[in-house]
Amino acid sequence: MNIHVLSLFPDMFTGVFGASILKKAQEKGAVELAVTDIREFSENKHKQVDDYPYGGGAGMVLKPEPMFNAVEAITAGRKPRVILMCPQGERFTQKKAEELAQEDDLVFLCGHYEGYDERIREHLVTDEISIGDFVLTGGELPAMTVIDAVVRLLPGVLGQADSHIQDSFSTGLLEHPHYTRPADFRGMKVPDVLLSGNHAKIDEWREEQSFLRTLQRRPDLLEALELTEKQQEILAKIKSQM
Amino acid sequence: MNIHVLSLFPDMFTGVFGASILKKAQEKGAVELAVTDIREFSENKHKQVDDYPYGGGAGMVLKPEPMFNAVEAITAGRKPRVILMCPQGERFTQKKAEELAQEDDLVFLCGHYEGYDERIREHLVTDEISIGDFVLTGGELPAMTVIDAVVRLLPGVLGQADSHIQDSFSTGLLEHPHYTRPADFRGMKVPDVLLSGNHAKIDEWREEQSFLRTLQRRPDLLEALELTEKQQEILAKIKSQM
Repeated sequence: MNIHVLSLFPDMFTGVFGASILKKAQEKGAVELAVTDIREFSENKHKQVDDYPYGGGAGMVLKPEPMFNAVEAITAGRKPRVILMCPQGERFTQKKAEELAQEDDLVFLCGHYEGYDERIREHLVTDEISIGDFVLTGGELPAMTVIDAVVRLLPGVLGQADSHIQDSFSTGLLEHPHYTRPADFRGMKVPDVLLSGNHAKIDEWREEQSFLRTLQRRPDLLEALELTEKQQEILAKIKSQM
Repeated sequence: MNIHVLSLFPDMFTGVFGASILKKAQEKGAVELAVTDIREFSENKHKQVDDYPYGGGAGMVLKPEPMFNAVEAITAGRKPRVILMCPQGERFTQKKAEELAQEDDLVFLCGHYEGYDERIREHLVTDEISIGDFVLTGGELPAMTVIDAVVRLLPGVLGQADSHIQDSFSTGLLEHPHYTRPADFRGMKVPDVLLSGNHAKIDEWREEQSFLRTLQRRPDLLEALELTEKQQEILAKIKSQM
């Protein structure tokens, strides 16, 4: 997969793209990550990329030319998904990550501080993605977040040992609690069942805990699930104990 | 404000903490950002920080000692909010950013790949925050995201020119479209009203567009609003035209 990011702050990506899974994925050849400074595509001798808004008001607006020029230069006739990181976009989910992981070619556009000229939104981008209802300084952190979620799904990127954490959203339930050594840490103890060696009981405890946690923290996830008969029994048992 | 991050990948933070608003906020003395490697607090000569899960299963679990030791060492008797970045946590919102911006002292715990020992969750942390329903490699990008959202709210961090973008969530509506020069870019034109110089009409257009966009993309936001009589009229007008 090719991923190309357009940003006004390309240095922000160095640490994240050079560590952990994103580093390994590049070394394995699963993904090529590139970051280009939007300023390189300004037609203005001062490398200006923004200007005052038509109609007045505070703040600056990213001009259309640098963005169109940059996307055209880096795609060179290919037709990638062009993703605008923007608080008004579709909310990012694991399903969207899985969808994007099927592509060969992704371009991410990151604004910073300011609005985008609407013509970028209407005529240049194929997807608008938001990672949530909060205000950030720019689209860089959201782009890194989406890229991390997508790249770890690419074939060969995760080893077996890493891949289990995907379960937390694929079952539709929150994960059960985890414990490791020591069994007694400053008087805080691991539940007996996990030390019992009885795997049927351990599985049962974990499934119950998973339902309990989902019920307490994210009942909306439960509503979206079609439960098996056995799961309905577990849920009824938990509710009766609450 | 003091912000201290505990991570297994401290180098991931360099680019983000050294650029843009987070850089400026540190230079202005509004925030001190520090990142510490959790491995420094391992009691094991191999600097091991994780171990196999009790009860079996794939994946590793972060041990309690290094996390407890690290938090105790860096807080040295102070009582900061200790925030665990975790997909099971409370969903991060602008309201939570505003709440955290009132604090003097925040500690962020970032796991990587794996689960946390439950005793960390139960006895060490004060808040568990998730940035959304997607699977990431670690808590580092979520921590950076929360830190960016919080630090930009601190007094003196944003200049007047930057501060307008906060509006997008404070009005409860999505922003209206923005346009800047050129008025005609490759045949794509700026709406006439914005070039009219009639500020009453421009304000009206913007408010209508803001409602229209919210209605099309995020009707859930509208349901949460108490509309003035004038706003109800605008909404009725838009709906009648759809």
